[in-house]
Amino acid sequence: MSAKPAPRKAEVDGKRLWQSLMDMAAIGATEKGGVCRLTLTELDGKGRDLFVRWAREAGCDIRVDRIGNIFARRPGRDPGRPPIVTGSHLDTQPTGGKFDGSYGVMAGLEVVRTLNDLGVDTQAPVEVAVWTNEEGSRFVPVMMGSGVYAGVHDLQHVLAQEDRDGVKVGDALAAIGYAGKEMRAPEAGAYFEAHIEQGPVLEAERKLIGVVTGAMGQRWYNIRVQGMEAHAGPTPMEIRRDALVAAAQVVAAVNRIAREQAPDGRGTVGCLDVHPNSRNVIPGRVALTVDFRHAFDDGLGAMDRALRQACAGLERPGEISIEVEQAVYFPPCRFAPRLVDGVRDAAARLGYSHHDLPSGAAHDAVYLAGVAPTAMIFVPCRDGISHNEIEHAEPEHLEAGANVLLAMMMREAGVAQGSLKQLD
Amino acid sequence: MSAKPAPRKAEVDGKRLWQSLMDMAAIGATEKGGVCRLTLTELDGKGRDLFVRWAREAGCDIRVDRIGNIFARRPGRDPGRPPIVTGSHLDTQPTGGKFDGSYGVMAGLEVVRTLNDLGVDTQAPVEVAVWTNEEGSRFVPVMMGSGVYAGVHDLQHVLAQEDRDGVKVGDALAAIGYAGKEMRAPEAGAYFEAHIEQGPVLEAERKLIGVVTGAMGQRWYNIRVQGMEAHAGPTPMEIRRDALVAAAQVVAAVNRIAREQAPDGRGTVGCLDVHPNSRNVIPGRVALTVDFRHAFDDGLGAMDRALRQACAGLERPGEISIEVEQAVYFPPCRFAPRLVDGVRDAAARLGYSHHDLPSGAAHDAVYLAGVAPTAMIFVPCRDGISHNEIEHAEPEHLEAGANVLLAMMMREAGVAQGSLKQLD
Repeated sequence: MSAKPAPRKAEVDGKRLWQSLMDMAAIGATEKGGVCRLTLTELDGKGRDLFVRWAREAGCDIRVDRIGNIFARRPGRDPGRPPIVTGSHLDTQPTGGKFDGSYGVMAGLEVVRTLNDLGVDTQAPVEVAVWTNEEGSRFVPVMMGSGVYAGVHDLQHVLAQEDRDGVKVGDALAAIGYAGKEMRAPEAGAYFEAHIEQGPVLEAERKLIGVVTGAMGQRWYNIRVQGMEAHAGPTPMEIRRDALVAAAQVVAAVNRIAREQAPDGRGTVGCLDVHPNSRNVIPGRVALTVDFRHAFDDGLGAMDRALRQACAGLERPGEISIEVEQAVYFPPCRFAPRLVDGVRDAAARLGYSHHDLPSGAAHDAVYLAGVAPTAMIFVPCRDGISHNEIEHAEPEHLEAGANVLLAMMMREAGVAQGSLKQLD
Repeated sequence: MSAKPAPRKAEVDGKRLWQSLMDMAAIGATEKGGVCRLTLTELDGKGRDLFVRWAREAGCDIRVDRIGNIFARRPGRDPGRPPIVTGSHLDTQPTGGKFDGSYGVMAGLEVVRTLNDLGVDTQAPVEVAVWTNEEGSRFVPVMMGSGVYAGVHDLQHVLAQEDRDGVKVGDALAAIGYAGKEMRAPEAGAYFEAHIEQGPVLEAERKLIGVVTGAMGQRWYNIRVQGMEAHAGPTPMEIRRDALVAAAQVVAAVNRIAREQAPDGRGTVGCLDVHPNSRNVIPGRVALTVDFRHAFDDGLGAMDRALRQACAGLERPGEISIEVEQAVYFPPCRFAPRLVDGVRDAAARLGYSHHDLPSGAAHDAVYLAGVAPTAMIFVPCRDGISHNEIEHAEPEHLEAGANVLLAMMMREAGVAQGSLKQLD
């Protein structure tokens, strides 16, 4: 009679996950500890190659679509069932960190490796996706691969986009060997994305798992304040048409409007350019951008109306004019309640503290949510800092997030009868 | 017996003056009718060359000093007397007009040409000066040439100053052929500067000649607001360290402080630079400049204290810091009463309406006032607009100002006995 093997838990190998993240971060590593692996560069190609090698070693079949998205599939027992997909992106900002994007891909790979270790068969296939050009640093639009996959962007249009040097997306894909031949219709039975929070909420709340309820809607604006430039010395205050004084009031209004919508609303003036920007010239023109976000569309609409009203109130006919042009609108996105609840339950079952929150940033998951039931899992990042070379996340937090992902992938893919008998 | 010639008036040729201004304005002319002739650029060199040619044609000797100031001298009968000097500058703001600076130089040239036409000899030499880099748009400090002449700035220090591309003043002077070999001690017996008002007061008062009593004092500051950059999406309003929101409050405070000191006080934020100036990144750092002016030193001191208090009040320890560094301090300056009275009397004698006022802008005359009895003559400019491509002055106003200048130059230089006999 053979000895009964010790029960094994359905948990990922945190050390292996960390090592994979570090090995991937070596490709494009910067002196300050970050990563510069711009989309569709040679370095991006090397990162993709490494992922593909690892996925093949883990028994996955590899497919690349025409926009360069990579799908690494671990077969299920029922080939008729749609795959349960997880993933994220491997491209980074020019001064990016080790975790933004890469974590979601490596966590997916770790799920596959863990299923292998456990000898678990799933009913549905399990897939790890690498989406092309999430960051948008080299080519626009952002979230290019997931946008094409979800039918938001036209493939041919996107392939023709050029970087600053005139290189086309299609040519850059071919140059690194990731111009696939096929373009399947969206087929995911569910989509999960693990990601660092890129914000400070989990840290402030001292919670381990972020249960992401959806993504905030966004309205971006270009605002142009027109006054009249004049010499700063001889021009009495009462007859000035100072565009910067008016623009400063717009900045204050954006901040006030967002604070009135706290905690669901956010408002930022990120760019502000003064013309002529000379010490002793009263500014005649200011261009600025506004980035409004809100968890709910009615809140976002209220912010829009408040902004337009504030700007109209700051105009002085014939003296100061303020043009407000909306540049981008994404409605808020709600993730699939069943999956969001599942993430919350899985975190609780695993003994992890958790906190519901919307994602303030857009992710590939936002486009996937349009074509498949979708949820995201956040883990904290130090000081909420991301898009920065000093971006950092703790190994045990990354491990916890991957464990929640593993639980959800197993639940949605369905564990084949008998294949989990050795687990406790 | 020969016929007695018709009496000639000691008046300038307004049409010639206007034509000279227009010819000079063609060098660096902008599409919108202004002039961009930044100091020590190739265009500045061409402007200087044109002046030098005209001055030589008018019989002047040319001397260039080591900081590139040009002195065009019409000899007097008594070489032992110090020259009576007038002048201004030929450099412009990036979006400057046709008259700021150029008028003072062209009016001086027109005085020389008129003396020639009249056949008048003066006792003292008459000099027209072109001061290097009055505007300070490309190199600091402003009023560079007159400042070195008057001993306010050290020549070697100034020659080593660099523009944004790292080009040194000394090299830029050499490149356009205006690096002179000598540096004489200040020698002007008196200094006059004709200038457009660059403000709206004369127009509002419906007066033709501005009798400039002195110049407002100035305090300039560099302010650096330091917060923390973060992703605009995931960062809740209440934990942001948004440097631009704080900077906007500084802009508002500068405006309020100046308005509290109206009509003698003025305050402007002319430059404001946001870092990283990206649409979806909360600004981590803002650099801005403040320009305070006041007719009286105690008012200027009150503005300084109010600014420092406002900035201290906007700091949030550990979150937002605001550094206030004073970059420039000019005390208010009073021009020589004898010459100011002379300008007023000359205007009245010529039948011109006139109005006493301080200059809100600094001019080369402010430095000259430290080494010579000095006065200025203002003429109106349309809508008070200057440092702007649409800057405009009426030909008859410019002519009137030049006539007052001519009268003062003749009075101070002394007309040689017998040489004015044909004038009425």
